[in-house]
Amino acid sequence: MSSTVIRNGTVVTADHSWKADVLIENGLITAIGEGLTGDEELDATGCYVMPGGIDPHTHLEMPFMGTYSSDDFDSGTRAALSGGTTMVVDFALPSPGQGLLDAIRMWDNKSTRAACDYSFHMAVTWWGEQVFDEMKEVVDRGITTFKHFMAYKGALMVQDDEMFASFQRVGELGGIAMVHAENGDVVADLQQRLLAEGNTGPEAHAYSRPPAVEGEAANRAIMIADMAGVPLYIVHVSCEEAHEAIRRARQQGKRVWGEPLIQHLTLDDSEYMSKDWDHAARRVMSPPFRDQKHQESLWHGLMSGSLSVVATDHCAFTTEQKRHGVGDFTKIPNGTGGLEDRMPMLWTHGVGTGRLTPEEFVAVTSTNIAKVLNCYPKKGAIRVGSDADIVVWDPEKTKTITAASQVSAIDYNVFEGKKVKGLPRFTLTRGMVAVHDGEMRTEEGHGKFVPRPPLTSVNRALSTWKELTAPRPVQRSGIPASGV
Amino acid sequence: MSSTVIRNGTVVTADHSWKADVLIENGLITAIGEGLTGDEELDATGCYVMPGGIDPHTHLEMPFMGTYSSDDFDSGTRAALSGGTTMVVDFALPSPGQGLLDAIRMWDNKSTRAACDYSFHMAVTWWGEQVFDEMKEVVDRGITTFKHFMAYKGALMVQDDEMFASFQRVGELGGIAMVHAENGDVVADLQQRLLAEGNTGPEAHAYSRPPAVEGEAANRAIMIADMAGVPLYIVHVSCEEAHEAIRRARQQGKRVWGEPLIQHLTLDDSEYMSKDWDHAARRVMSPPFRDQKHQESLWHGLMSGSLSVVATDHCAFTTEQKRHGVGDFTKIPNGTGGLEDRMPMLWTHGVGTGRLTPEEFVAVTSTNIAKVLNCYPKKGAIRVGSDADIVVWDPEKTKTITAASQVSAIDYNVFEGKKVKGLPRFTLTRGMVAVHDGEMRTEEGHGKFVPRPPLTSVNRALSTWKELTAPRPVQRSGIPASGV
Amino acid sequence: MSSTVIRNGTVVTADHSWKADVLIENGLITAIGEGLTGDEELDATGCYVMPGGIDPHTHLEMPFMGTYSSDDFDSGTRAALSGGTTMVVDFALPSPGQGLLDAIRMWDNKSTRAACDYSFHMAVTWWGEQVFDEMKEVVDRGITTFKHFMAYKGALMVQDDEMFASFQRVGELGGIAMVHAENGDVVADLQQRLLAEGNTGPEAHAYSRPPAVEGEAANRAIMIADMAGVPLYIVHVSCEEAHEAIRRARQQGKRVWGEPLIQHLTLDDSEYMSKDWDHAARRVMSPPFRDQKHQESLWHGLMSGSLSVVATDHCAFTTEQKRHGVGDFTKIPNGTGGLEDRMPMLWTHGVGTGRLTPEEFVAVTSTNIAKVLNCYPKKGAIRVGSDADIVVWDPEKTKTITAASQVSAIDYNVFEGKKVKGLPRFTLTRGMVAVHDGEMRTEEGHGKFVPRPPLTSVNRALSTWKELTAPRPVQRSGIPASGV
Amino acid sequence: MSSTVIRNGTVVTADHSWKADVLIENGLITAIGEGLTGDEELDATGCYVMPGGIDPHTHLEMPFMGTYSSDDFDSGTRAALSGGTTMVVDFALPSPGQGLLDAIRMWDNKSTRAACDYSFHMAVTWWGEQVFDEMKEVVDRGITTFKHFMAYKGALMVQDDEMFASFQRVGELGGIAMVHAENGDVVADLQQRLLAEGNTGPEAHAYSRPPAVEGEAANRAIMIADMAGVPLYIVHVSCEEAHEAIRRARQQGKRVWGEPLIQHLTLDDSEYMSKDWDHAARRVMSPPFRDQKHQESLWHGLMSGSLSVVATDHCAFTTEQKRHGVGDFTKIPNGTGGLEDRMPMLWTHGVGTGRLTPEEFVAVTSTNIAKVLNCYPKKGAIRVGSDADIVVWDPEKTKTITAASQVSAIDYNVFEGKKVKGLPRFTLTRGMVAVHDGEMRTEEGHGKFVPRPPLTSVNRALSTWKELTAPRPVQRSGIPASGV
Repeated sequence: MSSTVIRNGTVVTADHSWKADVLIENGLITAIGEGLTGDEELDATGCYVMPGGIDPHTHLEMPFMGTYSSDDFDSGTRAALSGGTTMVVDFALPSPGQGLLDAIRMWDNKSTRAACDYSFHMAVTWWGEQVFDEMKEVVDRGITTFKHFMAYKGALMVQDDEMFASFQRVGELGGIAMVHAENGDVVADLQQRLLAEGNTGPEAHAYSRPPAVEGEAANRAIMIADMAGVPLYIVHVSCEEAHEAIRRARQQGKRVWGEPLIQHLTLDDSEYMSKDWDHAARRVMSPPFRDQKHQESLWHGLMSGSLSVVATDHCAFTTEQKRHGVGDFTKIPNGTGGLEDRMPMLWTHGVGTGRLTPEEFVAVTSTNIAKVLNCYPKKGAIRVGSDADIVVWDPEKTKTITAASQVSAIDYNVFEGKKVKGLPRFTLTRGMVAVHDGEMRTEEGHGKFVPRPPLTSVNRALSTWKELTAPRPVQRSGIPASGV
Repeated sequence: MSSTVIRNGTVVTADHSWKADVLIENGLITAIGEGLTGDEELDATGCYVMPGGIDPHTHLEMPFMGTYSSDDFDSGTRAALSGGTTMVVDFALPSPGQGLLDAIRMWDNKSTRAACDYSFHMAVTWWGEQVFDEMKEVVDRGITTFKHFMAYKGALMVQDDEMFASFQRVGELGGIAMVHAENGDVVADLQQRLLAEGNTGPEAHAYSRPPAVEGEAANRAIMIADMAGVPLYIVHVSCEEAHEAIRRARQQGKRVWGEPLIQHLTLDDSEYMSKDWDHAARRVMSPPFRDQKHQESLWHGLMSGSLSVVATDHCAFTTEQKRHGVGDFTKIPNGTGGLEDRMPMLWTHGVGTGRLTPEEFVAVTSTNIAKVLNCYPKKGAIRVGSDADIVVWDPEKTKTITAASQVSAIDYNVFEGKKVKGLPRFTLTRGMVAVHDGEMRTEEGHGKFVPRPPLTSVNRALSTWKELTAPRPVQRSGIPASGV
Repeated sequence: MSSTVIRNGTVVTADHSWKADVLIENGLITAIGEGLTGDEELDATGCYVMPGGIDPHTHLEMPFMGTYSSDDFDSGTRAALSGGTTMVVDFALPSPGQGLLDAIRMWDNKSTRAACDYSFHMAVTWWGEQVFDEMKEVVDRGITTFKHFMAYKGALMVQDDEMFASFQRVGELGGIAMVHAENGDVVADLQQRLLAEGNTGPEAHAYSRPPAVEGEAANRAIMIADMAGVPLYIVHVSCEEAHEAIRRARQQGKRVWGEPLIQHLTLDDSEYMSKDWDHAARRVMSPPFRDQKHQESLWHGLMSGSLSVVATDHCAFTTEQKRHGVGDFTKIPNGTGGLEDRMPMLWTHGVGTGRLTPEEFVAVTSTNIAKVLNCYPKKGAIRVGSDADIVVWDPEKTKTITAASQVSAIDYNVFEGKKVKGLPRFTLTRGMVAVHDGEMRTEEGHGKFVPRPPLTSVNRALSTWKELTAPRPVQRSGIPASGV
Repeated sequence: MSSTVIRNGTVVTADHSWKADVLIENGLITAIGEGLTGDEELDATGCYVMPGGIDPHTHLEMPFMGTYSSDDFDSGTRAALSGGTTMVVDFALPSPGQGLLDAIRMWDNKSTRAACDYSFHMAVTWWGEQVFDEMKEVVDRGITTFKHFMAYKGALMVQDDEMFASFQRVGELGGIAMVHAENGDVVADLQQRLLAEGNTGPEAHAYSRPPAVEGEAANRAIMIADMAGVPLYIVHVSCEEAHEAIRRARQQGKRVWGEPLIQHLTLDDSEYMSKDWDHAARRVMSPPFRDQKHQESLWHGLMSGSLSVVATDHCAFTTEQKRHGVGDFTKIPNGTGGLEDRMPMLWTHGVGTGRLTPEEFVAVTSTNIAKVLNCYPKKGAIRVGSDADIVVWDPEKTKTITAASQVSAIDYNVFEGKKVKGLPRFTLTRGMVAVHDGEMRTEEGHGKFVPRPPLTSVNRALSTWKELTAPRPVQRSGIPASGV
């Protein structure tokens, strides 16, 4: 069994940084220290040795209108590795009426091709006894995070009473509730109103999903989670309104996390005003890009800790797929890429500007989500015993992002033309060098499913508090007879 | 035609105070100044001469479980006058499927007995083409305020999409949207959970409607009103959470008003912990009483202008009616009295403590709501040409509130035992002296309906802004052919 | 004695609007109603008849570096009248060591030339027994508002302990404390740092007075006023930070008002980036213009009531005077014009866009400040008995602002090139028609001093509350003997 | 050299928990894993093995009015160890005019008796060239945190301009600014006012330092630190007002930390209302205890991360010393104990209630401050290579706190009678077992000074951002000649 050593770098974790070599054997980190040697040596001089990125929000090969999102677990995970991300978490999405376990089986099949490790969130797209029952087995399978769509009326959307029932079930099982927060009733109505008024282009997608609509739903989900006694994770927080709701909740001691996307941190809604229909349509995602006030809010959230994780919602459709919505913006498939650009874009605009420390970069790209998802320190750590999911980061390396040279299967890149400084020199997935100084050495099917146990320490603390403060009946004697 | 003059008092309006006599002829104020004389003279020495109170939130003779709330337009309006209130606004409540105009007809019949003037709000308790159509005629009849219940699932509650449709319709008609803000789905589920856990007493009513549930709904209604472009009035704001949502909206330039009740300002939720079932059940209303943190928030809202109006939600049930809910708190009829105590309680705890100036007292008990409802300065003013709805307020007069001596038809009073300082010496309804130094001289049927025109200046300003900022399509040439 | 009648207009006050004629005799409003006649008739067809504007913040003929601000009480008040403003409040500024009464005498002399009515605020620019003593007489003279500069270190600035002592004195006398809120220590240091770094141009003026520095001082003044038990009025609120402090205070029930300027509402800090030194220097004032985020905050404050008054801080220096600061921005005299443009600019950007109703326009330009300053309804009202300070406003009249045609004595206008819609047809000062359809008919010396009594109802309420909640000693027996 | 192994426990760090033994050699942790053995074995069955507590805020043997605080480095550090705290950070306090290095020498002398490791903060109690110059050497000595008193007028207090100058110097040196945040001018004046009004008892201490006074100063320090470009640490945050200022700053991306004390988290201001003068006086500290609203705010801050560290401000005076202030509360020495109770009280009220997870407990008692102070992972970690400063925590162990059995040298305990659940079984200081199952085995002088390097990664990030956004001059040609 051969060993690999990463030499002469500076290890950077979420809590501090220090000069050290890292030894890897059997896919695990087995030693961290000075002067280590191994069969293969990777030179990390001038580099940071960091936990590989974890992207907790991808939709690979997602079914859509009779076709699929164009990056699958093969191209998607290769794109991830090329950018320093070593684990993805995808969403198992049951069709209305379909069982949860059945959906997981479908996702199991797709994910056999993955080049890096992965896990799943379970989507709750309808409610019924079968769903209630199967949730237990889903948790037993190591899937503890349950996503609810408050938008996409008539398709994935669940109602408040369903969401409340599901959240309570998630809480009992020691899991974590997740939401896509947009008021689906209002979005659906605005869409119809806009179309009726002749607003049919991709910019109308943004008009139909204003920040207030997202903020409202985030606020509602937080209240429902609080009543259900379950921790809540809000995906793709794109605006101050949703962030404000999260901050307010956290200030009240609630257990809520927010996840901004790299797109919302670095791109804005002027993109939709492009005279080029394709340009605008390629940026159609939900929530849409926002203006700079919102960007600033998201950055501040990462800096202060009110937002916890940077993801991508990677869901890549080709231009041809996007053109399905010519003449009717509601038919443009929602989604953009980002998997291979998340880490360099965040480093450039975060660490490069002084907004984030290198340690905070590791926290928001990897460690925080590993803790939330309860796979830390197997993932998200540079630590003896951890999986050797590592990115060796060269802070001086630069490139200009372009679709022409990307790994992703689609024909454009929303970051086209952006210059980044800070890129992987090596990316290792469980010890295997998947990216070697610009050369891709990934292996299809190398990736394994990462099961995650329930009942984190946050779950337990929240349950203790809820029990302590539970309503208790007043003891009365002499209650009158019932009237009327 | 005889004249009446109020002599030697200090006129107090929402904008200032000055020494003057007030002359009344034909039910109208015809002169304000020094040294006026008239056929009848009312001595206001040492008193404040203020616009009579307007209570915009009553439920008189409201149908409930085969019976009715026990104060009707007779006893209710007499109670109002006895406490210095000269106008009430009640809610015309259609049953599910019942037409709006039909409901108004029912309320017209009940209100013929009113001793003071009154108006109606229209409740939108279901949605359909008939409702949409009749709303126009309702507005033409002078009813421009449309109330929506976000709670009472399975009964009065409307869904978000219905509310959004209705709000848009209200906006088109130049009216004002109103909401009872509580998340009905969550309340319904909490009720079941509490009953199942053995929480059957009246205190469980409070447990089932926590502040967060109210705050969420207020926040949601505000977003929906904003999307619909309609001003919003939120009734019975009882807690910091709802108040915070209102403040936040106002700080964003939204046109939103909040109405706390005198009960929530002066009573707290320790009442539900009473060992006496009757005592607790008599205080059951929605939203329930809150703790002192919330009280303080409401007072501050009145002081700073983020809350605008003090009402009562007067909906009086006898102890016998309350006992309908022995063994199951969800069957306790919701509602308390307050009509005759609102003004003295607010004066005592507001002006008496220095929280409010006398002018602010007039604003929040009368003038503000007259403006919102667009019946100012017919009502809510001491002004030549205004209706002579006047209370002559003796700031030195005291009493201890007790059911034994109240006008209201029920057998208890939630303010029992409270001492107040500041009471009416005279109350005039359109010039008629209805309360004369402790003696009631009301006349059944004296009250008239007050129609209110739509399209206030706030409606017009909001429409201008919404038009100015409306989404506009990007003009593009060379749009590609539709794909897929 | 001749009478004047304004016919066929719509009277607009802070509380409502209605069709009526207005009769004026002896400088007072003597009747409001339909079909009035008089010796002179002013045709207000299509116009709004509103209370003349009150600008509570001017510096006319203010001494500066051996010269004076270039608009004096003559040109300044004529400029005011031309734009619909009928009263100004100027600041009597004692030099260090100079007595208050002595300063008032100087201002009395300057103001003899005023063409419209005026009042004074008293500046407290140093602290000592003489100041303490004279404050009483100042109040007796009808000057009840005391301004404190937290900036201008080494000149006008007072320290916290001085401010606290002065605020307590103001409170005792029933007056109102005012502050210019910027942290003078930090500004002074930043100025030196910027100069040392080669930042010598007018843009460095803005750099030296960032929003945070203003917000801090506003927050500090609020705390000190609260401890002193005195109402507080914060002048020229230019930014979200200061506005936030005010909102927060008001939400806690504190008696604080904020005054944005028309310049900060409509101009932004990109002006300082002009390549034309003169252009940038002419806009130098304190606080400086801010960016659009701050503008939006100020507008929302006016809409929601957290900000109360729009003023100008009119302090006009010629280009030649501005050039005193070539090579050293700290020597550029601080101040801009605005008196004649405040009303049309606010109407255009406020009422014209739907941000404000016409009634709110009256409130923030006239009525609110008249109430704060306790000269309502003599001023700020259309009401029988009020001074006939009236502007007849033509909402359809337009012009492009330009220095070439302005009344003000200086050679430029910071609003140069701005189009306004909404201008005076007539302006009346105590019944005299000073502006007649574009023609100036002002009269030097027509203006009179407006004395204002102390002890407003806000003062009395605040004192009641502070007394109620004052610290009280714990009664103890058996206190031990003193140790050590 | 003998080895020690802690067996069968659960290691709990700030980021996660796992079953492992811990091996200690030469005062360092040398292995963590299963089945370890050593010369001495400590049984941790049922226990948590956590980093020893760090108390960053003590005043041991602090000079006061000719005497000293009664716990010195001997009794103080023994008290610390008894409660699971293994490092204290004390304040080197120069007298006015005294050099910084001279003060450090005095503290070096006192600390030779310490039983556990310690470090110093440097207080900046006056400003001048000598202070400026010596700060460099202080940093070179490993003291990088500089405390400024905004209160104690006439003694330790510094003015804004001094604070700004000092903060800039701290920033240049890569250090961290600290403040005691209370407005000293206002406190001094309130003290005099209260005494004059006959409020002489200990409760007047609380009256003289209301939350608003603390909040103002926190807000001011934050602005000044932002302008200076230096990270800021605010000690003893006791109230919502200060916490709000910190939250607001963090939400704007500022680098600010807040430190509540265990006293403010668990005790309230009703203590000052005690009829027993001694009882009240013993609780006199600055800031004083607050009411429950503030307690809740502080807990929420710990839960959400807006507050970072729990300390004690341990500064113990005997009852006799306290009695110095009989008849004049301003003479009561400020300070309470807490060193030995911080950890059990926080565990009981934090982890025991579900407010905090065990990992969060470690973060706020040890790891966070080790990172802020830049001595992590030497301190604050259970990690190979870290100092073996360890507490073996028995979550089932209970006691009732009483002065009768405490280690601290004083004659009372502010937590007297409080029951705690969760106590140390063993406390190790650099490998030495100082507390062994209730038995104290401390060694005088065992403690060493912990030097801390400057230029943390937060310092570097902040500097990068400040440089990126620094003001830059506009390039202009044709600047006019200077006027006037």
